[in-house]
Amino acid sequence: MEDVAIVGASMTRFGQRDAWIRELLAEAGRACLDDAGVSADAVDHLYVSNMASGEFEGQTGVPNALAHDLQAVPAYTARIDQTSSSGGAGIYAAWQSVASGASDMTLLVGGEKMTHKTTAEATDVIASLTHPCEYKHGLTLPSFAGLTARLYLDTYDAPRESLGKVAVKNHKNGVDNPHAQFRKEVDLDTVLDSPIVADPLRLYDFCPITDGSAALMFCTVSVAEEYTDNYVTVSGIGGATDTHVVHERADPTTMRGVVESSDRAYEMAGLSPDDVDVAELHDMFTILEFLQFEDLGFAEKGEGWKAVEEGRTDRDGDLPINTSGGLKSKGHPLGASGVAQAYEIVQQLRGEAGKRQVEADVGLACNVGGFGNCVTTAIFEGVDA
Amino acid sequence: MEDVAIVGASMTRFGQRDAWIRELLAEAGRACLDDAGVSADAVDHLYVSNMASGEFEGQTGVPNALAHDLQAVPAYTARIDQTSSSGGAGIYAAWQSVASGASDMTLLVGGEKMTHKTTAEATDVIASLTHPCEYKHGLTLPSFAGLTARLYLDTYDAPRESLGKVAVKNHKNGVDNPHAQFRKEVDLDTVLDSPIVADPLRLYDFCPITDGSAALMFCTVSVAEEYTDNYVTVSGIGGATDTHVVHERADPTTMRGVVESSDRAYEMAGLSPDDVDVAELHDMFTILEFLQFEDLGFAEKGEGWKAVEEGRTDRDGDLPINTSGGLKSKGHPLGASGVAQAYEIVQQLRGEAGKRQVEADVGLACNVGGFGNCVTTAIFEGVDA
Repeated sequence: MEDVAIVGASMTRFGQRDAWIRELLAEAGRACLDDAGVSADAVDHLYVSNMASGEFEGQTGVPNALAHDLQAVPAYTARIDQTSSSGGAGIYAAWQSVASGASDMTLLVGGEKMTHKTTAEATDVIASLTHPCEYKHGLTLPSFAGLTARLYLDTYDAPRESLGKVAVKNHKNGVDNPHAQFRKEVDLDTVLDSPIVADPLRLYDFCPITDGSAALMFCTVSVAEEYTDNYVTVSGIGGATDTHVVHERADPTTMRGVVESSDRAYEMAGLSPDDVDVAELHDMFTILEFLQFEDLGFAEKGEGWKAVEEGRTDRDGDLPINTSGGLKSKGHPLGASGVAQAYEIVQQLRGEAGKRQVEADVGLACNVGGFGNCVTTAIFEGVDA
Repeated sequence: MEDVAIVGASMTRFGQRDAWIRELLAEAGRACLDDAGVSADAVDHLYVSNMASGEFEGQTGVPNALAHDLQAVPAYTARIDQTSSSGGAGIYAAWQSVASGASDMTLLVGGEKMTHKTTAEATDVIASLTHPCEYKHGLTLPSFAGLTARLYLDTYDAPRESLGKVAVKNHKNGVDNPHAQFRKEVDLDTVLDSPIVADPLRLYDFCPITDGSAALMFCTVSVAEEYTDNYVTVSGIGGATDTHVVHERADPTTMRGVVESSDRAYEMAGLSPDDVDVAELHDMFTILEFLQFEDLGFAEKGEGWKAVEEGRTDRDGDLPINTSGGLKSKGHPLGASGVAQAYEIVQQLRGEAGKRQVEADVGLACNVGGFGNCVTTAIFEGVDA
């Protein structure tokens, strides 16, 4: 089977946007068509990654609306939802559409419009993904993060400061990302002195509520070569779930969905964790960057925090993590985030990441839904890899 | 590429159900595992077709919940939404997962829980898929149906009674479907004298609000043969959209999504409309059965109404349509309907349709989202076809 390639990528400015979901999706979609040099009528499959346009805006059927707005009718459309990892699930769906031969050219657009809601309202929409037996006791995703952070720090004798350093690093990276919601550095004291949200985690351990969208164009390698000599391949991809009830997990500091999905992705790519040069991890909460770093095989269990302490995950480290600024500073529009992770990896592998550029032939994106409830991991390779 | 097969199928009783979406999905999921003789741990991809569990019940993340309830963790999960054609989109996604080599065994479960809402509330959720420029003028899906029915009757000189006969036929079929919401015959006078909803259409021209779910198990033919000698193949499948704004269509009596999606399905299957022995069409409104009958190539444009008048689409006619009772009498739980259409075709092709059994080697299911906004068409063949 021929490899699947990405021939175009785009993202909108993330943040508080005076635009509805339809407009955000169309903005990224048009930019991706332009970036790929593909005309709308060449697109035969159009997927939208989005968790909750109905709940947030009372607007459903957004894939059909996008086909209309991009003048891509009669392209086939569908919405792919996997809660906060809808973007990664969209990448997997787009990959399948090309790999199965169903599609010659698939456009994936992920997006979410959230900031017109209060933080409490938005948190409540997101919390609707948790199991009712936990939710009724007040266990939202931030509270799971607090509990897990406490367990991690105690079990592995990790300093609280190491979590803060994730926020400091990712904010520093975000300064150089013109699309990021927060383009300002924060120092460690600011993080550690910020208001407590879910002890031991504080405000700066959390990603914000965000509006935005991102897009990718998929086709086979042989089609890609008709458009560009600087495409990227999806050499490995996998997805997996963990228990819906978080307290049923044998060890809450291990994300089984990350382990299983990355095992499949590495196997498909014929690569190992050592081969990865740059990665975007789902740092919805700082603690998640440690868990994914370990569960992706970049460090032994309980050792992930040392990588950030030692500067290994800095932009000039041996395995830069979240060069985009991550969800932490770039923002987290649910359906867009997984697509925007891949956008960053594509930019790095094409050598188009500007001030954020690192040396990389192989990149990885790990997109986490819920509190590890569902995960997709994708491995990308540059054309010269 | 090896053909994709269906090795198991199930549906719950449709109607007013004292069960939430999680319970409905698990009921059909377990029944499908039983029917296929497949264990939950053999399922590696689990898709859920559902439009609006968040809007209807405040519960999202239902695919992960279903993986939990079926003990299918760590199977990959995602929700596929294409509004009222989410079931057909799920079939296409499941097909792609197997055809691409991503999955060895994919379980698709479609479902919706609606009857706890008033008809007005449910209609409002469904109407959120329409374009705001039309919705603000009161153009919900039933009103589009009324306008289109008037245009069809006038343009093609068709009698009002022909629409009523669709309802009579489908109710008659539903009597023999133990899963149907309405298992009672209606006579033509009852249909024609029922209250006006959207002139010229009356209450009995519309499908009901329904709870229910249905499921299908997909794998390659070679895997299928390890489980059963009575599987069904998906020999052709395609999807397409039409304009989001209905009044932009050159001819509202032609559903471009049906034409385009079935063209792709026929081409993939190497078959023509003449080869189809039985079909399930999306009779959300009686007029839609005429439009699809024509746009699928079963009759010339404007001639579809004659088929029902002549009894050709009766159970003992030359092309039985909606032997299940259709959405009209079986019910229409949005995310389940497209899956339940395929369930009926699978039962017919396996020779397990009981009193509804017709002679058929090739079956077709056409699932319509919105007012033809997005459509999937799938062609199925029995193992002896």
